[in-house]
Amino acid sequence: MTADPKHDRATEASSEDRLLARIRRSLSVSRKKSSSLRLAIGDDAALLRPRRGGETVLTCDWFLQGTHFLLDRHPPDSVGWKCLARAASDLAAMGAEPRCFLLSMALPAQATGSWLSEFLRGLQAASRKLECPAAGGDTTRHEKVLINVTVIGECRRGNAVLRNGAKPGDAVFVSGRLGEAEYGLRLIRSGRGRINARDARLRKHLYPQPRLAIGSWLAQQRLATAMMDLSDGLSADLPRLCEASGVGARVEAKRIPTVKLSSLDAKKHDALDLALHGGDDYELIFTVDREDIRRIPRSIAGTPLILIGEVLNDKRICLANKDGAEAPLARKGWDPFRN
Amino acid sequence: MTADPKHDRATEASSEDRLLARIRRSLSVSRKKSSSLRLAIGDDAALLRPRRGGETVLTCDWFLQGTHFLLDRHPPDSVGWKCLARAASDLAAMGAEPRCFLLSMALPAQATGSWLSEFLRGLQAASRKLECPAAGGDTTRHEKVLINVTVIGECRRGNAVLRNGAKPGDAVFVSGRLGEAEYGLRLIRSGRGRINARDARLRKHLYPQPRLAIGSWLAQQRLATAMMDLSDGLSADLPRLCEASGVGARVEAKRIPTVKLSSLDAKKHDALDLALHGGDDYELIFTVDREDIRRIPRSIAGTPLILIGEVLNDKRICLANKDGAEAPLARKGWDPFRN
Repeated sequence: MTADPKHDRATEASSEDRLLARIRRSLSVSRKKSSSLRLAIGDDAALLRPRRGGETVLTCDWFLQGTHFLLDRHPPDSVGWKCLARAASDLAAMGAEPRCFLLSMALPAQATGSWLSEFLRGLQAASRKLECPAAGGDTTRHEKVLINVTVIGECRRGNAVLRNGAKPGDAVFVSGRLGEAEYGLRLIRSGRGRINARDARLRKHLYPQPRLAIGSWLAQQRLATAMMDLSDGLSADLPRLCEASGVGARVEAKRIPTVKLSSLDAKKHDALDLALHGGDDYELIFTVDREDIRRIPRSIAGTPLILIGEVLNDKRICLANKDGAEAPLARKGWDPFRN
Repeated sequence: MTADPKHDRATEASSEDRLLARIRRSLSVSRKKSSSLRLAIGDDAALLRPRRGGETVLTCDWFLQGTHFLLDRHPPDSVGWKCLARAASDLAAMGAEPRCFLLSMALPAQATGSWLSEFLRGLQAASRKLECPAAGGDTTRHEKVLINVTVIGECRRGNAVLRNGAKPGDAVFVSGRLGEAEYGLRLIRSGRGRINARDARLRKHLYPQPRLAIGSWLAQQRLATAMMDLSDGLSADLPRLCEASGVGARVEAKRIPTVKLSSLDAKKHDALDLALHGGDDYELIFTVDREDIRRIPRSIAGTPLILIGEVLNDKRICLANKDGAEAPLARKGWDPFRN
């Protein structure tokens, strides 16, 4: 910036303020959608008016360069989409609806130009799709891109679906298809250079869809006895749901909805392995009382709901293979502290 | 961990789960305090029951190794204290009360041992002092310690004090003493080795006190026409308040409450310079209608409230020196994107 003696210091915004103004413009919210969001980005804090009879649902998620995405390979708009979508998935897992989000970003100089514009475009697309406007955030400088998203949602009092209500005999359901995101990630890892964002096989890895309509319907109908989202893979997340409920589970390999692989890819990848241990799917896993199984529709909003097993009295987590033989389901899902 | 063939995989917590369990134990909340926090750490998201007639206030703050603290020099308990205290300061600036917080941490292996224990001790101390229990969070691995804190607060509907209500003629007040945190930081920078956490001159830099009682009282009495907290220094933050209100301001050097320096330190540091440009004080700056000046007490909860200037009709931000001569107040406060 060139010095201009006529330019009063008081009206000269700092570079941080200018960056904030740019983010604010990109994420600006239409009046209509934001009627209950009294004050968005620009003050010390955001104000949200809770709905009568509602309960506030809160969650936050890291999205870090090098850990969750690659700055030079992932399309920046997919980084923007995914950082919000995966945080919103935690609300889907409670049966809640998103109300607004806070964006914390730390940026190196090389990411404040076109990378940031594309990032904000993807974030804005997710914000509109999920009806979850930006309410505020914090911005600072760092040598790597660091993103943390807090999503604030709402559900009716007492309607939130927790992880701890699964009972022996309950049926275990999952939404969608498992392993698709991991399949996309493997294709990306085996390739080089820029990622083709239009490759349908990469879609779920790049632009996951939180299952908000499914979670919300199950909570309203009070049909799910326990629920969570699959972010670290079935073999890592199913034990968490079971531990919270003090139960075990048996899932059947033949029932698990897996990726459809081309004959060429089937030589390199095992669809069941992808489904059991692949992370980042953001599908829902939920349990349903036996009596209520027939009340679960085949699909909601175009996404299939599939019965894959049952809740056990003891604390085993096991997999019945295609011949019916049972074996413990080894935990191989994503764990950042194990590697 | 040694392999134990009798140990069922399903009951074997992952290292991430073990770390989360440790954080959860450290930050556990007594039943009484958490009556409205229905579900704390351990599910997909946290549940908070809003108070009737209340408005939810949301803010988040980075606290990064290398930018905001030094892993090898700052006492880890001060890092824990400060990351929550500075986020809560944004609530004080709105006149809101804290309800709960979410902690996002990314940790390198070297910080998961005694560093983390001490960090959690400081965080727990702040959490109790501010009556702001932990509600959840996210943990991952990173080569540096990354902290992001979201604080959720509440105020009565319509009572939040924004930045945009200052009117020409209003008096400008600040709480406490300005420049103390910067003074402590300079002492730390000029020293070497471990920091003496008991040195009273470092207290405000290490363990800042968000002015929640002051903010809340001003909001309830509806006395502040605009308010914000001083996190980046008076010369950076006052223009922000003025810009939001579409006004200017004149502050008087002789009225600004500054650090009391020893005669030795007075040779090295300028107390007015520290007060004008030093960041991290987390004091409040607020404006008050002329008619209401006499209703502002000399102090609240032991912290003085000092009249330092007035709001101007035009958009100048200026400083009257001790002789009464006016000059533009140059912005030299903290800006992570300027350096």
